[in-house]
This record gives sequence, structure tokens and C-alpha cells, in this order.
Amino acid sequence: MVTVTQLREFIRYAWERAPAVRAQLNSVGMTPEDFKNLDDLVKIPVLPKKKLMELQRDHPPFGGWNAVSVGEMQRIFTSPGPIYDPQGAGEDFWRWAPALREAGFGPGDLVLNTFSYHLTPAGFMFDSALRSLECVVIPAGVGNVEIQVEMMKSLGATGFTGVPSFLMALIKKAEEKGYQFREEFNLRKAFVTAEKLPETMRTHLAQDYGIEVFQGYGTADAGCIAYECTERKGMHVGKEVVVEIVNPDTGDPVPPGETGEVVVTLLNKTYPLVRFGTGDLASLLTGSCPCGKETPRLSGIFGRVDEAVKVRGLFVHAQQIKKIFDDFPEIKRYQGRVNRSGYRDELELWVEPAQTDTFNSGLVARIKDRAREILRLRVLVRQVAPGTIKEESVLIDRRKWD
Amino acid sequence: MVTVTQLREFIRYAWERAPAVRAQLNSVGMTPEDFKNLDDLVKIPVLPKKKLMELQRDHPPFGGWNAVSVGEMQRIFTSPGPIYDPQGAGEDFWRWAPALREAGFGPGDLVLNTFSYHLTPAGFMFDSALRSLECVVIPAGVGNVEIQVEMMKSLGATGFTGVPSFLMALIKKAEEKGYQFREEFNLRKAFVTAEKLPETMRTHLAQDYGIEVFQGYGTADAGCIAYECTERKGMHVGKEVVVEIVNPDTGDPVPPGETGEVVVTLLNKTYPLVRFGTGDLASLLTGSCPCGKETPRLSGIFGRVDEAVKVRGLFVHAQQIKKIFDDFPEIKRYQGRVNRSGYRDELELWVEPAQTDTFNSGLVARIKDRAREILRLRVLVRQVAPGTIKEESVLIDRRKWD
Repeated sequence: MVTVTQLREFIRYAWERAPAVRAQLNSVGMTPEDFKNLDDLVKIPVLPKKKLMELQRDHPPFGGWNAVSVGEMQRIFTSPGPIYDPQGAGEDFWRWAPALREAGFGPGDLVLNTFSYHLTPAGFMFDSALRSLECVVIPAGVGNVEIQVEMMKSLGATGFTGVPSFLMALIKKAEEKGYQFREEFNLRKAFVTAEKLPETMRTHLAQDYGIEVFQGYGTADAGCIAYECTERKGMHVGKEVVVEIVNPDTGDPVPPGETGEVVVTLLNKTYPLVRFGTGDLASLLTGSCPCGKETPRLSGIFGRVDEAVKVRGLFVHAQQIKKIFDDFPEIKRYQGRVNRSGYRDELELWVEPAQTDTFNSGLVARIKDRAREILRLRVLVRQVAPGTIKEESVLIDRRKWD
Repeated sequence: MVTVTQLREFIRYAWERAPAVRAQLNSVGMTPEDFKNLDDLVKIPVLPKKKLMELQRDHPPFGGWNAVSVGEMQRIFTSPGPIYDPQGAGEDFWRWAPALREAGFGPGDLVLNTFSYHLTPAGFMFDSALRSLECVVIPAGVGNVEIQVEMMKSLGATGFTGVPSFLMALIKKAEEKGYQFREEFNLRKAFVTAEKLPETMRTHLAQDYGIEVFQGYGTADAGCIAYECTERKGMHVGKEVVVEIVNPDTGDPVPPGETGEVVVTLLNKTYPLVRFGTGDLASLLTGSCPCGKETPRLSGIFGRVDEAVKVRGLFVHAQQIKKIFDDFPEIKRYQGRVNRSGYRDELELWVEPAQTDTFNSGLVARIKDRAREILRLRVLVRQVAPGTIKEESVLIDRRKWD
């Protein structure tokens, strides 16, 4: 965890070298000496991804956010926008190695890295982390599923990095080719990110294929932000990263457990992003992790800020509605409907039970409890007849604002 | 240049660690102590690419050619076959850095590396060489031409690595988008391989776009084999590589200037390929290079052994016929025709001059001289009427063997 002394010294470093950080502090009349405690961070305006893009366009290539010159970097990548992403010095610049170590990767592992190495930094993020852990890497990228299956098998790959759906695609292809995956392949560990990992898929991979799956959260700009420990109950915030969950309108932190935008400050000597607004929605978990580590933990990522709906000042995302009902197989279809009654927002959950006789007040109470846990909101639950839910979307906004 | 002491010590190293090298020597009753001079290499049987593939299949992953364990490697790649290619320790494992340094790459360069990083080693070959020269790399891979053009321009890329046709494709796209390439881009140096570089294209890139192009020759198995110096008159064989030009049927060296298969021995502590038959056709240039370096020089690569035709015991490849006529713009169409007259092969060059009045005995003599220089063969030259040459192919075999 970052101390106030570390933060102040780091802000001073960035202020001296990165003109954009200096401008960011100047805009609110702050200097590095004003950092008396960690909460002083919130006085600095958030840098939204969109603004980073504009600043880069006006002051190429990094909009003044780089604290070292281009010549001191290893590689430069591009994300859609375009936003340019630097890789600075060091063998694990994006800090994924601790995440992979926690997932069991280390010497002796031969890892199929299926993130792309072209233009995007994802491939190199995991390649450099795996190399720093003394894993041997097969740089595979996306596509060529058939060749990848043969390579995994004949080289005896032990690990996988990539998005979970691509891991499933490789397994399916192996099965199509008549292989017994569990018996004929050595793949026993996987680290996934950049895509939702449904718990059902995680269980399926563990039980049917013997693959233990861990996940992490990061961005092309910031690298690793948080990752699961062996308890796999939320993601611990990594070193050298300060994470805040904020109200995207004000930039002010929301209380623990509430959903908001993930804002990160990177103690990175190449690219010191300060209060960078990722646009991703998450919440900080309350309570301590059974693993014993005291670092803050993020819930999974619920979605993007611009896809969320605000109910009584709190963000609600379709992914959160899905998450509520993950625990209720007895509900066949469901939908969250935001209404406005007088001056008050209401979130009503329409549910179509698989069998009407399973629906009772106990079930309703459990759904309400789970919704409160995930959304921090009281909701209404209404049973509707099969076929009532017409729309595809699991979250619709029915409010009228005129 | 490799000395006999270096070679003997290296063979001893490989013999002790790589079972396939031991078997290769055993097959002719040799031990490392039998290496009294460099010529003793020819007693060892050539390892054709196809046999490497079979050995890898039977003894995965490297067929016993690796002198270190998989765990000591950095990465593993695959070439069609499949053949697995290891990347061992070291920051420039495939030895392209000297080639790129000769081409002017160094600190301050920002290089668009358009070789693929996925499955094939090409991307990493140039990435690691560029990084060892302190260049900043943009890992671009193939495709995404439009994004690559914008990146080159806005980041001010100074260098390019890739195949020459892709460099032309990027320039064409930039022009299509209305850019003045020479004025608006900083790209001034390029290193190309894996594809023929026509001299006309090299001149076009230099004169019209200010891009100096150098080329090299290597394979996925061996890495860099030879590369151009600033004189750009053939390619100097690199350090830690012994190159022989051999008769592919016997494995015996052919005289300097004659075309044969490129056979390489790698003084590489990870993957000590000994007398590896690349299947590529080239000749050693005679005479010394104006640059002063005494290393042997390869002609360009003419093509593949299995696409060549043997004329009076000498290999002739379509690329060589083309090379002859590169110097004769007054010839509109041409074709090499191999005939058999009695027990003797004849190579006849049919030529259709652009204008009949330019055709005279002086021109015929010059074509014959050039053919002799390139093919080491006396040829017949016959003027034919426009439209006589029907086939697409520039080299056809008309011999009957029954």
C-alpha cells in the first residue's frame, strides 16, 4: 500500500518531469508540498480517457504525461482513439508478474500467450511478466486455433494467458479433433482478463478440464490494476497503484461497497498517470480477505460508466443485474426496470420463475438481499407471467424527465 | 570468421549436450577430435530441413538438436511443417543486431517492426535486435495498414523492418490518404528480408522517398545468416555462422561463384545446428568487398533448391534468369529454355527486343557475359519475333529423358 510520503515524493517527481501533471495540479493551485495525506489526491481533477486522447493529439505523442523521453522507452503501442501507450524500462513494466505468481505461474511453466503483440500492448504485458517469472512463452496471439492446439499438445504447454472465451475455443477445437483434453494436454493453469469470466465457466474449466483460472483487471494505459489471490474473492489492488472508486460526475470517492468509476494513480516513473479515469465501473469490497492481505479489493468490473444508469445517485449496470441472478437458477428470465415515482427513482426487478410453485416470499427476500449486497439499493421484486419480458436488455430505463 | 579451434570446441560442446549432433557425427564415425581443419565439416552429413522436421516429430520438441533444456529458453515458435524454433538466452539471440547496425539503426531510432510476432519468430528476431541497439520499437505486425500509416506519421517513426512489398503498401496508403510521404514522414531507413528486393524498388525508395534500404538473409531456424554492408554488393556472412554452398545431392561444396544450396553451421549454445541444409540457392561471390571486410559474401538468394533446374550439373533458377535481364531494359520479354542435344544440356535464352534495331551482336555478347557471370554457364541467345514467348514462366525445361 502506498504511504503519503511515497505519494508526495512521487507527485514531486512527476511534477518536475511531466508537464501534464504540473498543469493538472496548477489547475487547482496545488503543488507537491500540498500532499499532507492520501485524501489530498481527491483535490486533483480526474483525467478522463477522452481527455488523455485529446491531450495526446495536441501534444504528441503522450500529451505531456510521460516523465521520460521517447528514446528511454522500450516500445510504443496504440489503442483505439488513438491513444499511445508507452512501455518504459524494466522487465515487468506493466506489473502483471505478481498477479501471475499468485495464480501459480513460475519456473517450469510453458505458457501459451494468446494476447495480441501487434499494436496493442496486451501481448507484451503478459510476455514480459511471464519472462520475469522465468516461464517459457509461446507467443501465439489470436487466431490459428488449429495450430495453437497442436502446439499446446506437442510442446506440453502448462499455462494459458488470454481471454476466457479463447481458452474455451481452444479446448473445443481440441475436442473436435478427437483429443481427450484432460488426459492428453498438460494445461493446468490460466490467467484471464479483458473479458467477463462467468463463474459457471470457471467451475467448468476446473471440474471438467482440471484448469485453475485466475483473473485480473487492468487497462492498456495503466497495466495491471488489481488481481485475484488464491481465495478468488475480488481482486486485490496491486503495488504502485492507488485506486479510488468515484462518482464520475464529481470525482469524489463513493462509500465502500458503492459502485463508481475506477480512478487510478500510477506510481510509474515513465508514465505517471495521476487520477486517470478508466471509465470502468466497480466497487471496493468491504471486510478483509481470508488470505490475510490488507490491500483494498475490487469487485469484478461491472461495465463502462457510459453504459450505466444512475438510480437514486447510484450506478447500476446490466452486468450487476446479471450478477444478482447468477445465484438464482430458479429464475428463468429477469429484467431490471428503472421507473420514477414522484421525485424518487425506483428499481423494479421483473422475474419469470422457471416453475411458478418455486416462487414464494422467501425467494423474494433472498433476491432483495442479494440486490442490496450488489447494488447498495433497495429494489422491488415483481413476479410476472412467462413471456411478459419482451426486451433483450436486462436493464431498461423507463423514467420520463420532462 | 570462425577458426578451426572455435569450431572444434563448439562441436565438442554440441556433441556433449545435443544428442542429435552426437548421432550426426556417429553416423560417419567422427568425434569432435577429428576436426583438424575447417574442411573436415564436409565429412558430416547435411541435415535437410525435412529431416529436422521428422526428427522433431519423433523426439519432440527439438529432435535432440537443443543443447539446453526447454526451461532455459525464452520463447518457442513454430514454422510450417511444423518445425519448432527455440529462442535461447541473450538479448540478440538471432544475431540480427550487427545487420541492423550496418544499415544505420541505433539509439534515437523509432522503428516500425512489421514482422509477425505470433507463432513465427520473425517479429521477435527484429524486436530483440532493435532493442539491443537501443532503438524504440513499434510492434506492428502485418495488416492494419491504415493505423500503421497514422502511427508512423504521428510518432515520427524513423525506421522500418519487414518485407519490401509491405513498405511499399504503407507508402501507397499514405499517398492515397493525401500525405506527401517524403515531406511529412521521418522514415529514412529500412531493413528488409524474406522476400526478393528488386533493385528497381530499392532505387525508387531511395530516390523518391529518401529511404535507404538494406537487406539480409536468414531463416526461422537459424536467424541471421548474412547481410549487406554499406556497399550493398552481396551479403556478408555473419559471426557465429559457417556458410557452405554445396551440391544438394552430395553435400560437397561447389566452387566459388557456382550456385548451390546454402548449408549453415551455427555456433549457437542453445540450438547448435550443424550443416543445416536451408534449401535456399545462392552462390559465394568471388573477389573482395570494397568495404574491406574479408568475410565471405553471398549473392542474393535465387530461390529454392526444389524449384531449380540442373543444367550440366549446375543449378539454374528462374530468379537468376530474371537477374540477368535486370540489366537489359532493351529486352522486352525473355525466357530460359533448357534443351538436350545429344548427351549435353543446353540453356537457350529466347529474347524479344523492345525494338528490333537495338538488337545486334554486341548486345548478344553482353547478355552472354552477364549469364556466364550469374550462372557460370555458357548459354545460347536467340532473338525471337514478338509474341513467340507464350509461357508465363521465365525458365522451362524442354528436355526429354526417355
